[in-house]
Amino acid sequence: MEYRRIKDQAKDGVIVDDDVENLRGRSHSGSPSNVAGFGGDSGDLSKWKRKSIVTLALTVLTSSQAILIVWSKREGKYEYSVTTANFLVEALKCALSLAALVRIWGSEGVTDDNRLSTTFDEVSVYPIPAALYLIKNLLQYYIFAYVDAPGYQILKNLNIISTGVLYRIMLKRKLSEIQWAAFILLCAGCTTAQLNSNSDQVMQTPFQGWLMAVIMALLRGFAGVYTEAIVKKRPSRNINIQNFWLYVFGMVFNAFAILVQDFDAVVNKGFFHGYSLITVLMILNHALSGIAVSMVMKYADNIVKVYSTSVAMLLTAVVSVYLFGFHLSLAFFLGSTVVSVSVYLHSIGKLQR
Amino acid sequence: MEYRRIKDQAKDGVIVDDDVENLRGRSHSGSPSNVAGFGGDSGDLSKWKRKSIVTLALTVLTSSQAILIVWSKREGKYEYSVTTANFLVEALKCALSLAALVRIWGSEGVTDDNRLSTTFDEVSVYPIPAALYLIKNLLQYYIFAYVDAPGYQILKNLNIISTGVLYRIMLKRKLSEIQWAAFILLCAGCTTAQLNSNSDQVMQTPFQGWLMAVIMALLRGFAGVYTEAIVKKRPSRNINIQNFWLYVFGMVFNAFAILVQDFDAVVNKGFFHGYSLITVLMILNHALSGIAVSMVMKYADNIVKVYSTSVAMLLTAVVSVYLFGFHLSLAFFLGSTVVSVSVYLHSIGKLQR
Repeated sequence: MEYRRIKDQAKDGVIVDDDVENLRGRSHSGSPSNVAGFGGDSGDLSKWKRKSIVTLALTVLTSSQAILIVWSKREGKYEYSVTTANFLVEALKCALSLAALVRIWGSEGVTDDNRLSTTFDEVSVYPIPAALYLIKNLLQYYIFAYVDAPGYQILKNLNIISTGVLYRIMLKRKLSEIQWAAFILLCAGCTTAQLNSNSDQVMQTPFQGWLMAVIMALLRGFAGVYTEAIVKKRPSRNINIQNFWLYVFGMVFNAFAILVQDFDAVVNKGFFHGYSLITVLMILNHALSGIAVSMVMKYADNIVKVYSTSVAMLLTAVVSVYLFGFHLSLAFFLGSTVVSVSVYLHSIGKLQR
Repeated sequence: MEYRRIKDQAKDGVIVDDDVENLRGRSHSGSPSNVAGFGGDSGDLSKWKRKSIVTLALTVLTSSQAILIVWSKREGKYEYSVTTANFLVEALKCALSLAALVRIWGSEGVTDDNRLSTTFDEVSVYPIPAALYLIKNLLQYYIFAYVDAPGYQILKNLNIISTGVLYRIMLKRKLSEIQWAAFILLCAGCTTAQLNSNSDQVMQTPFQGWLMAVIMALLRGFAGVYTEAIVKKRPSRNINIQNFWLYVFGMVFNAFAILVQDFDAVVNKGFFHGYSLITVLMILNHALSGIAVSMVMKYADNIVKVYSTSVAMLLTAVVSVYLFGFHLSLAFFLGSTVVSVSVYLHSIGKLQR
């Protein structure tokens, strides 16, 4: 019951402001003026700033991630084992979280909120998102029996709807009517932007394919919303500690995946076989994106995350025109228009809530 | 200055309620209780009913119109001259308006509002919509030098935006922010619903093609908004009189078109050459749709008209699945979703205005 205990402490005045840390600890909002009840505006501003920065970081990282993937495919080098790369991503995130913690311990000392040691109660929920992603990744192999890769990309947009619904049900946060309308538009707009001449094949997807797509969307949505619940459950707990434990379990599950899928390849060819500069850049990018996702969960929410990654998808396409000479389709323009209106309506809907 | 005079009379208490007639004259809202200021609710209800009926009629007629066109193409009978059919449509509308008027004269007697005779001031603006449509139809022949027919169908959606903008500028009616967003979505959704594998060719349209498409959209929008201004300028004037004069000029302009385009064919083969049952049904349908458009302009507005015809387009596609075994594309589902959300947002936006 560590959670309860520390929550009670918070109520007793040790920690007054919800959601107070930023990356470096509590240098801004945790200042005495804020605890004393003054400086509320500057606190709001600093929260807004922090939220904007992590959202922007996620958008930029997600879109450069897609560009790196296109680049790596063009180079034709895709020989490394994906499981080892995934493991390294988790390990790098763990290392970065630890580095941030060491710095914070140096400047602030070790407190209840930033100590590494944890309780079973706190840590017991941390493997769940990683486990959900593992199940989802396993299902991914089976869904390709029913849908081709471009069709799968289109069905992935169901994730937007499942995230909205689970966000509403699990976190009990209300979205206004306009925001629901905006969310449906976001899903329709993203799908429209991805349409090509073969997209209609997705309509011939058999029932099993649809079922698996819906289950995967629910798993993905559930993992996202669950992560938000974990990092927000104890707002004063340092995000780097929360990340550290999330990523430790990520490492464990990915080590398991290496054993199951790529054990022979790793033993025979070596762990780093087929790695290139692009592979390293992709791992770095995935690690930073992963941390940005956690930050967005902590300081914003899953809705912001979905918008951020959707806008990133559109940015990627535009940037690809210049980098790779891609052509933008009419469907892309129409989809982007719908997504833009959706972003606008979401912000309007927030004001009117 | 007949307008001014009658408007002043209205202010003096002869006609109190704006927009008071329905098809049969002033049987409902013009009742004494309403003039005295009572019965406002029942007046609102009857206005709402009338508005709904004409909107529904327009939607059903427009979608059956498209179905008749598909049917007639399937039958392969398209040998009649389009200009004679257009002339007959105008003549039929004229006759129907006169028939309605004879009935009204019988029940209510001849008043200032339903007398056929008119002044130069009143009638001088009536040829303008017909002239604008003529110019637009002439341009239509030239635009096909730059765009193919499916591309033209897609560019026609610009009409939605031009109508909204001209409605705002010419009639000085405000749309709320949400309604503007809904209007952009309507345009994007309709275009998305029409996407097919060749749609991207429209992106290669040369500048002249775009320019002509924009000019045509402006002409179409201008004609629509101008018609609304005409029929609403004197709300108490019977709509059948206003229609009669609109259609008289429609007949004149279409007679001109027969002379220019199909004179030889009419002289050599006869006026009704190539007419079939479907041709007659199409003429009947066009005439009724035309009257429904006028009614919507009088009792609702151009925005309602645009929504009504857009929803009709979607209805047509769904009905065509059953009638002609058409397949609905993924783009159609996405477009329909966006249009549906747009209709919802438009109605929400109205409440919040």
